[in-house]
Amino acid sequence: MIPKGTVKRIMKQNTDMNVSAESVVKIVEILQEYIITTTRLAEENAAKDKRKTIKARDVENCDGERVRQKILEVADRTEKVNILTKEFLKVLSSELTREE
Amino acid sequence: MIPKGTVKRIMKQNTDMNVSAESVVKIVEILQEYIITTTRLAEENAAKDKRKTIKARDVENCDGERVRQKILEVADRTEKVNILTKEFLKVLSSELTREE
Repeated sequence: MIPKGTVKRIMKQNTDMNVSAESVVKIVEILQEYIITTTRLAEENAAKDKRKTIKARDVENCDGERVRQKILEVADRTEKVNILTKEFLKVLSSELTREE
Repeated sequence: MIPKGTVKRIMKQNTDMNVSAESVVKIVEILQEYIITTTRLAEENAAKDKRKTIKARDVENCDGERVRQKILEVADRTEKVNILTKEFLKVLSSELTREE
């Protein structure tokens, strides 16, 4: 488990505010989750390359991959994609009539 | 500094592959960076609420905010947004002629 004391120290170096114990716990949880998901993605990356060792570049690719998955999740979840698409087309149509 | 031994242990619990020293260093760097950016965003969030203490909910909001910033960065950086928009409109146009 990632030590709370270390996380709290780094937080305090970057803010003058008080840092609640629960906020430290929350960050520790996120970091642990981050290590787990990154390790699994890095493993897949190494496997594609037929390697048996996870290298730094496998980890680097993961950050982008994580954001990518979040974007796709959001796109699947929200109705807004449809609404925005329609809005986009309306703007485009009004642009057309202005040109004519 | 987040201990490399702890990070390596969590990684090894989630993969049967070998874990290179450089990949552990890379994850430690990302985690440290994550704590710093999260603390700053959490501080802004607490300030908006007129609080002097960072709470767990400030941290929770940050993860989404971080992804949001990454998406905007990518949108600014890539030409692909324009290319995709054109592609999208071409598909739409061909859909129109099919209906007629």
